[in-house]
Amino acid sequence: MSTIETRLKDLGIILPAGAAPAANYVPFVQSGNMLHLSGQLPFKDGKLAYLGRLDDTVSTEEGYEAARLCAINLIAQIKAALGDLDRVQRIVRLGGFVNSTAAFTDQPKVVNGASDLMVKVFGDAGRHARSAVGVPALPLGVSVEVDALVEVKG
Amino acid sequence: MSTIETRLKDLGIILPAGAAPAANYVPFVQSGNMLHLSGQLPFKDGKLAYLGRLDDTVSTEEGYEAARLCAINLIAQIKAALGDLDRVQRIVRLGGFVNSTAAFTDQPKVVNGASDLMVKVFGDAGRHARSAVGVPALPLGVSVEVDALVEVKG
Amino acid sequence: MSTIETRLKDLGIILPAGAAPAANYVPFVQSGNMLHLSGQLPFKDGKLAYLGRLDDTVSTEEGYEAARLCAINLIAQIKAALGDLDRVQRIVRLGGFVNSTAAFTDQPKVVNGASDLMVKVFGDAGRHARSAVGVPALPLGVSVEVDALVEVKG
Repeated sequence: MSTIETRLKDLGIILPAGAAPAANYVPFVQSGNMLHLSGQLPFKDGKLAYLGRLDDTVSTEEGYEAARLCAINLIAQIKAALGDLDRVQRIVRLGGFVNSTAAFTDQPKVVNGASDLMVKVFGDAGRHARSAVGVPALPLGVSVEVDALVEVKG
Repeated sequence: MSTIETRLKDLGIILPAGAAPAANYVPFVQSGNMLHLSGQLPFKDGKLAYLGRLDDTVSTEEGYEAARLCAINLIAQIKAALGDLDRVQRIVRLGGFVNSTAAFTDQPKVVNGASDLMVKVFGDAGRHARSAVGVPALPLGVSVEVDALVEVKG
Repeated sequence: MSTIETRLKDLGIILPAGAAPAANYVPFVQSGNMLHLSGQLPFKDGKLAYLGRLDDTVSTEEGYEAARLCAINLIAQIKAALGDLDRVQRIVRLGGFVNSTAAFTDQPKVVNGASDLMVKVFGDAGRHARSAVGVPALPLGVSVEVDALVEVKG
């Protein structure tokens, strides 16, 4: 078993099959050694979890869990793309979109759910640049969407 | 006539002159073999079409058409950058921003207007990674903005 | 003193220490010759400036100044990453997120605060592709967040 797969197992994380895109596009495109991942939603056991808006029906803690689920789905797509997660050179960038009321300003605490998991799973190679912003609405009513850019070992 | 230009003609699409940026930046920057396109608005015959907000004054079908127009303007900028559209190796990524009420959750159906066109025009090379999110407001009151990352043949 | 540092001095700009991320991520990741910068907030003298929403408590002119501050913080991070700002080959892309009421449509005028500064500081190498969108909420209540992609000299 690969190093990263072992770490996932130690964390009790079972990767889902990569979710099919909700529309006419693909979940990832590799260009050179850069892997571009489509925005992932908080799917758990094939169903969306934590629907709703932060500061409204979703708490910051629940938003954190939603972002963590987005990261698990990103890792599932990375595995689908590369076959072996040990081929990840670096998680370069995450883009976090948080379904927010106008009063909610803790987007960083929410997107930490994805950032923390990437560092737990990939170690220093999981440390990434990031943007976290609020949005008024997301596909299918989810609370968080996260996309990613990953460097692949040459 | 190039393969892609022929396909555009078959689709009845006439590329506009690339729209000038609404501010102090440029419509595209090529870095290595990656072409970064600025967010494009739904210009048609030099005028903005489908102004307004989804689930308010703009229907999902109209939003789809607006996203399609954004894609046509992206293709116009790609042509301005590369001269020949056959030099496109891959549409790597689209970023779709949909002017949405808080209740609107069909951003994917809207951004499909851009995704579908890219696949019609570029075939498999048009299949891309994508993020689609809602926003409360866009430049000049447009309903959709789409940016893109394109890989250019070496 | 380097060319760019001299220009900053002529513009009366003193770079801050790069702001520490508000969460568990890093301010920049270099992958090959591409430097990815995390979204920067309008810090001035270690404090956030121009908190609030455009068209509400923040005017377009104040938003412009906020975006300019974001750009100064981006340049500070670029310096932290590269040591010497003369190693910048090109500011490739800026992503501007503007805290906006639903009625505000002058996001380009706001993000110009960042774009104009990049061109003043880096000249033609500062001309970038860009997306500018409205958002309903941003981390810590700031009015503007800007991220960036920079090409580094080989």
